[in-house]
Amino acid sequence: MPDTEGHPEVNEIELVDVFAALADPLRLKVVRDLLAEPDGVERHCTSFGLPVSKSTRSHHFKVLREAGLIRQVDRGNSRMATLRRADLETRFPGLLSSLS
Amino acid sequence: MPDTEGHPEVNEIELVDVFAALADPLRLKVVRDLLAEPDGVERHCTSFGLPVSKSTRSHHFKVLREAGLIRQVDRGNSRMATLRRADLETRFPGLLSSLS
Repeated sequence: MPDTEGHPEVNEIELVDVFAALADPLRLKVVRDLLAEPDGVERHCTSFGLPVSKSTRSHHFKVLREAGLIRQVDRGNSRMATLRRADLETRFPGLLSSLS
Repeated sequence: MPDTEGHPEVNEIELVDVFAALADPLRLKVVRDLLAEPDGVERHCTSFGLPVSKSTRSHHFKVLREAGLIRQVDRGNSRMATLRRADLETRFPGLLSSLS
């Protein structure tokens, strides 16, 4: 069952949801930017420079989170995002590397 | 430029369009079914057993065709579909194998 933040467990990540999340240029950019970072890097949601309003940005991160692509954590006043690299590699081997 | 049937050339295939096409369980099934066949196999559009009307089926195949995932060819009265395996592997190495 997804946690209270809407993060699905590994075995709940569905390929159709992952593709729906990636079928948007801005969300795809976020995932590719995270993929270009070392594993485990946490980035602030504003650091991707998405040219959208705060509420639209929150929506995009929600889609990525609920699809299982990213994990969001609170660090003080900041909301940080990490790529669920190992989880995605376990569930759909090779998928992430095809994005880079 | 896409041909008259809407097939994009290899270098026109866009990842966002591929993901949008795969973000539907029936279209994903068609691609996975084709992927399970030997390379080059042509299948009739009705052979996938999609539980939808003829017009909806045509729509799904149009989305797959215009995204560059499949090629459709006429064989007499039949409309056949093949997976653009080599083109996709050239453009996005590893993507198809992550679906199987």
